[in-house]
Amino acid sequence: MIKSFYPPLRTLMGPGPSDVHPRVLEALARPTVGHLDPAFQQLMEEIKLGLRYAFKTENSLTYPVSAPGSAGMETCFANLVAPGTEVVVCRNGAFGGRMQENVVRAGGKAIMVDFEWGTAIDPNQVEDALKANPNASVLAFVHAETSTGVKADAATLADLARKYDCLTIMDCVTSLGGSELELDKWGIDAAYSGSQKCLSAPPGLSPVSFSSRAAEFVKSRETKVQSWFLDLSLVMDYWDGTGGRTYHHTAPVNALYGLHEALVILSEEGIDNAWARHEKMHTALVAGLGAMGLEMLVNPEDRLNQLNTVKVPDGVDEAAVRTHALKHFNLEIGAGLGSLAGKVWRIGLMGHAAKRENITLCMAALSSALAEQQVKVDLNASYDAVMQKLQ
Amino acid sequence: MIKSFYPPLRTLMGPGPSDVHPRVLEALARPTVGHLDPAFQQLMEEIKLGLRYAFKTENSLTYPVSAPGSAGMETCFANLVAPGTEVVVCRNGAFGGRMQENVVRAGGKAIMVDFEWGTAIDPNQVEDALKANPNASVLAFVHAETSTGVKADAATLADLARKYDCLTIMDCVTSLGGSELELDKWGIDAAYSGSQKCLSAPPGLSPVSFSSRAAEFVKSRETKVQSWFLDLSLVMDYWDGTGGRTYHHTAPVNALYGLHEALVILSEEGIDNAWARHEKMHTALVAGLGAMGLEMLVNPEDRLNQLNTVKVPDGVDEAAVRTHALKHFNLEIGAGLGSLAGKVWRIGLMGHAAKRENITLCMAALSSALAEQQVKVDLNASYDAVMQKLQ
Repeated sequence: MIKSFYPPLRTLMGPGPSDVHPRVLEALARPTVGHLDPAFQQLMEEIKLGLRYAFKTENSLTYPVSAPGSAGMETCFANLVAPGTEVVVCRNGAFGGRMQENVVRAGGKAIMVDFEWGTAIDPNQVEDALKANPNASVLAFVHAETSTGVKADAATLADLARKYDCLTIMDCVTSLGGSELELDKWGIDAAYSGSQKCLSAPPGLSPVSFSSRAAEFVKSRETKVQSWFLDLSLVMDYWDGTGGRTYHHTAPVNALYGLHEALVILSEEGIDNAWARHEKMHTALVAGLGAMGLEMLVNPEDRLNQLNTVKVPDGVDEAAVRTHALKHFNLEIGAGLGSLAGKVWRIGLMGHAAKRENITLCMAALSSALAEQQVKVDLNASYDAVMQKLQ
Repeated sequence: MIKSFYPPLRTLMGPGPSDVHPRVLEALARPTVGHLDPAFQQLMEEIKLGLRYAFKTENSLTYPVSAPGSAGMETCFANLVAPGTEVVVCRNGAFGGRMQENVVRAGGKAIMVDFEWGTAIDPNQVEDALKANPNASVLAFVHAETSTGVKADAATLADLARKYDCLTIMDCVTSLGGSELELDKWGIDAAYSGSQKCLSAPPGLSPVSFSSRAAEFVKSRETKVQSWFLDLSLVMDYWDGTGGRTYHHTAPVNALYGLHEALVILSEEGIDNAWARHEKMHTALVAGLGAMGLEMLVNPEDRLNQLNTVKVPDGVDEAAVRTHALKHFNLEIGAGLGSLAGKVWRIGLMGHAAKRENITLCMAALSSALAEQQVKVDLNASYDAVMQKLQ
């Protein structure tokens, strides 16, 4: 027999999920209505509005996929990659590798442009690849690499894609709501994100947006999309209310209550204010870590505000530090992934969690965890550095 | 600007989602933890236990897909159907048709065995199809056809599948927790369900279970599963805790809190008691509808307890009845789908919603809605008939 589960009260400063706003948690528990209820259809329309605001787009085809970010990624690739489609994929972390998997499984050819993990995508190398592969019709890249803490110059990459007549697919799982993101200004054709990062909702939904150019491609492709569940031509008829809603699948009603509330909170703060807050908190965190003697992995100009990769000092047992933080401070920080495993911590400052209280908690926990390993840091200096940036 | 959404308070007696238990709603709002948190891993193990109990199986590969039932269906087909695989698909409603779509998109060949909507699958015709197609390696059928209210003789169909050396895929979206279901006793190889029917959790998760024979097929297949997100060989490494958990995607943490609580409630009641309750309530509902002069679509021996298809009397505007029930009683009942559109109502008695209060509410709403259309029914007789069955 199993019993009711009461989770421990954590502060989530890993790579995601991040802390969920209490208003969002409360919204999840509101009474379920039918997925074709008139009231629910009104909610769907508002979610589309809220997502367009967050993505800075007028794309009518903007909605949340009823599954986590990985399914949003697959929605983009399965719909825009037909058998034989050539896709230039930029890879400077774990999620570029996952893009390659998606291209191959959709029957496409992935042309990989590789960069060292922790460094940015060099547009010159991408242009070389586009030049060398004139049949490529899609360019894919990760805007905010959650595995490394590196941001991409999305505007420049999207310009290149247009120059070489490619559609763009952009992973903005970790950027949406946390850093500057302008789908329409940049001319991005397909973007996917996650509910559990800078939107402060629980994991499980993946906001996506498609330009009319992308929608045209889907309508005109000759082969069926391999996934029935993710087929845009079917899902559109459910999320587009103009012609009456055709039942496709049962929408995750309560999860959508949560996402809606998260979008209300975002619109109350203002998207530009949210970006500015993430930047301010990032600057303070980095100052505090620096005063502690800890180094960042990524060059200052390429750093993400919401995901900070911090080098593990020589001789320090990185897993023991995370375990100490979780055990004594109920604080979750993330481990390194792939080639960065054991070498970095990943400290998230996402959405609701990007706040002063969390930065000071993180300093306290790191200081305590390092002291356990006989590494003494100056917490006074660290707090002073943080507070100076927050003035 | 959008504002917080407060849903109307409905009673959900349509084809699903059904009413969510208040304990489940409350569980959804508990604080989010990380998807790799030790406490969360314990929750995952308990969910697997609870699902094995509900499915009556020892299958180790039993877990909830992080998306609605349609994605559970696709998980079964995308993994067990490789290019060229021949699948005998029984179709006596909408969901058999969706199975065909899944087979085709996975590169397989669907051999359809068709029956009139509202009638049961005839095992003799299925055996004829299996005989005539010796290369078929999968038999697929819907255990509880939500579009028609018909149940299948799953034990007999699974026997046939074994006799002709086929794996079985069974849709039990609407049966899990609501009617007799014995995966191991019957020898079902792959089954998928939904959280939003007889488990009384919100929509968004799809419990699945695979026999060792099915798991072996997935491990030995030569082509990659077309979906990265649904690829069992990858997902198993996350849900199987024995070898350490390999990150695959971010699990929908709060939705899983809800499913866990729903499974706790089911184990408290006892699965056999839950089945018996659904049967008792179904019998009472049918008696009450009969005393009102309404007729059922399906033969008594083929009826589902949890989904009741009721014929719309001649001259009655069926949509106006549903609108009346929703507007004046906050009661949702379902419309007919496909060839049954306009001809039937679908009245759900699922999970927590299979209770006396809901039956009497339904009678009151139908009586009132029919009176609006000058059709007078005898509510006294109807209540008497209900109460007699509930003694």
